[in-house]
Amino acid sequence: MKDKVIEIKQGTVTSPNGFLAGAVEAGIKYKGRLDVGVLYSEEPCAAAAVFTANKVKAAPILVSMKNIARGKARAVVVNSGCANACTGERGLKDATEMAAVTASKLGIKPDQVLPASTGVIGTHLPMARFKAGIEKIELAKNGGHKLARAIMTTDTKPKEIAVRVTDGSAQYVISGIAKGSGMIHPDMATLLGFLATDARVEPDFLGKALKATVNESFNMITVDGDTSTNDMVSILANGAAGNTKINDKNGKVFQEALSHVCRFLARSIAADGEGAEKLIEVCIEGAKNASEAKKIAKTIAGSPLVKAAVHGNDPNWGRIVAALGRSGAAMIEERLEVYLQDEPVMRNGNPLPFEKDKLSRRMKTDIVKIRVCLNVAGGKATAWGCDLSQEYVTINSDYTT
Amino acid sequence: MKDKVIEIKQGTVTSPNGFLAGAVEAGIKYKGRLDVGVLYSEEPCAAAAVFTANKVKAAPILVSMKNIARGKARAVVVNSGCANACTGERGLKDATEMAAVTASKLGIKPDQVLPASTGVIGTHLPMARFKAGIEKIELAKNGGHKLARAIMTTDTKPKEIAVRVTDGSAQYVISGIAKGSGMIHPDMATLLGFLATDARVEPDFLGKALKATVNESFNMITVDGDTSTNDMVSILANGAAGNTKINDKNGKVFQEALSHVCRFLARSIAADGEGAEKLIEVCIEGAKNASEAKKIAKTIAGSPLVKAAVHGNDPNWGRIVAALGRSGAAMIEERLEVYLQDEPVMRNGNPLPFEKDKLSRRMKTDIVKIRVCLNVAGGKATAWGCDLSQEYVTINSDYTT
Repeated sequence: MKDKVIEIKQGTVTSPNGFLAGAVEAGIKYKGRLDVGVLYSEEPCAAAAVFTANKVKAAPILVSMKNIARGKARAVVVNSGCANACTGERGLKDATEMAAVTASKLGIKPDQVLPASTGVIGTHLPMARFKAGIEKIELAKNGGHKLARAIMTTDTKPKEIAVRVTDGSAQYVISGIAKGSGMIHPDMATLLGFLATDARVEPDFLGKALKATVNESFNMITVDGDTSTNDMVSILANGAAGNTKINDKNGKVFQEALSHVCRFLARSIAADGEGAEKLIEVCIEGAKNASEAKKIAKTIAGSPLVKAAVHGNDPNWGRIVAALGRSGAAMIEERLEVYLQDEPVMRNGNPLPFEKDKLSRRMKTDIVKIRVCLNVAGGKATAWGCDLSQEYVTINSDYTT
Repeated sequence: MKDKVIEIKQGTVTSPNGFLAGAVEAGIKYKGRLDVGVLYSEEPCAAAAVFTANKVKAAPILVSMKNIARGKARAVVVNSGCANACTGERGLKDATEMAAVTASKLGIKPDQVLPASTGVIGTHLPMARFKAGIEKIELAKNGGHKLARAIMTTDTKPKEIAVRVTDGSAQYVISGIAKGSGMIHPDMATLLGFLATDARVEPDFLGKALKATVNESFNMITVDGDTSTNDMVSILANGAAGNTKINDKNGKVFQEALSHVCRFLARSIAADGEGAEKLIEVCIEGAKNASEAKKIAKTIAGSPLVKAAVHGNDPNWGRIVAALGRSGAAMIEERLEVYLQDEPVMRNGNPLPFEKDKLSRRMKTDIVKIRVCLNVAGGKATAWGCDLSQEYVTINSDYTT
């Protein structure tokens, strides 16, 4: 696999052929910050997207859900600083207009545009500023870097990647940018991911591949258990690489390359969680099935007590087992094995002796690994989270109207 | 109801007739702190208990589950400083001996004793110290206050209450003590509640009444979403009041008085959550049914973003709606009403104008009330939580071996 999927240095979402992007300072919320951006394909695309599971869905999510229904799209327009969520009829009108204005600027149809927003819930999008911003946008081949910055809110750094894929005679690029919850301004912990590829991909397969990949990447990260009203991950495939169309039958390499891109972005989001100093990687093995393994992995990665212990380099593995037990997954205590930074701390339901100070020192690093073997069956999963710091609370309790 | 259930000043678990308690410094974990205690009834009792839903159950929980199976018990023995959880065969042997040693001291049978523990997971109970402690214990009529202090770990204050109940010609007392997660030492966020009454109660009804009451009191509080391996709430009813036996048919007042006691203790635990400065009360009305209302109330009360906003007096109601949406409960966005400190902030799915600074000032108080009306059906519930402070993180990330 390694030689088939190679990361492109300084790759970004516009690295595949035929994609342009741009971003401007529209003054939606901040002064002096990029906050409106566009991703555009010169050719029509097969397209797919997954959306927040939150029952409260932001207006742009509702419009994008409608526009993606035919499996086609050519552009994404996004703003930061305002979520356009809980904004009623007017919000829906604004999101619809957001797509229409962008389409008009690009000379395409409104239903070829996917709108997305991130920011404070319950305020209306300042449409005059948005429209003036779109008017000013200049699209460029290397515009992906600018777009990656424009979607940032509380993130501390842009998250972008592109990989070159070689699959037999086919050569193509898959790329993506994402935002999560870093920290500049509270209440913007939306996950947005925009992927692009110049591969020719059969639309149904594209949708299935995206869903499967998101399930084991973006859906396996947890910063604070709160699901945004605005989460969205989309992919545009414009076919500029001229490869044999990728589908169910020949899609293995495409799927794995897509997974590489999404896992990279997902891990980057977890590591850049609000106030976070460390990435927590939780590997579950031997669970009843994959679904239970996922549940356990996410419960442990999301436990405030586990997260706080990791923050303080405290090898307090009892909290890991307590989180496992609360997950509700099938387990037999006598078969449990727990590893912290690869050090066994519990086996067969019994505590193992270990040097606490030494293990604590080994936890003083950017990545803390937790591994639990249930020895029940073959279910496996990995989840990513981050430590819980005082800074997270400070960030999210600042009263900043 | 009010004149039927009257709080007794400085009431505690030994306020009902026929109950004694005591506690000692056994040195289980700390120097100079009460950490082993006993509650004892002079007469045999009808008894009931509910236990942690965590699949990993501490050894004393397993022993108490066995001993309570016949609906009888006469004593509770409890230690703080060691959870005796994840301790394998030896842990089970220790918990069994814990009950036996206590029974021997009290001159009753081992299966009449309910053991409970709270403290660090994954370490063995120091049995020599425990036995020496039990040997020294002196039981007294006013010993409830001492016992309430002995079960504290990270709590900042003891939680105790007793109410005098008048129901027609019957007069009796219901009392209780509890511990939650305040803060002296990390990793001890176990919920323990010990209730007592001198009422004569039919054992089956006692179990049902306890379960129903715990579901709308202790089970409706959330400090950090982590469920302990050691949670337990028990009640002993010794019948010393000589009333007509209380059962399904005549149990209404008993049930309401029990609810009063449990709600008081539950609210006290939430308000004394680790690092907490405020109690958050979340009232849900108009949900599809009571079960969905509970789910919504707990999701909102447990949302880190809501908790952090309350900490910072930030009237950021979008986080409340986002938590509601993520709860998965049936809702129609256009019918939603949200109130913060009784101020309407959202109605019919639209944001309402309000003075942010004024509302923020009104949030600077010990209790912050959130009310959500779904206007879907008649489901109601109330949950209690606490704000999320920097102190919570400090408490739980301190490396303290």
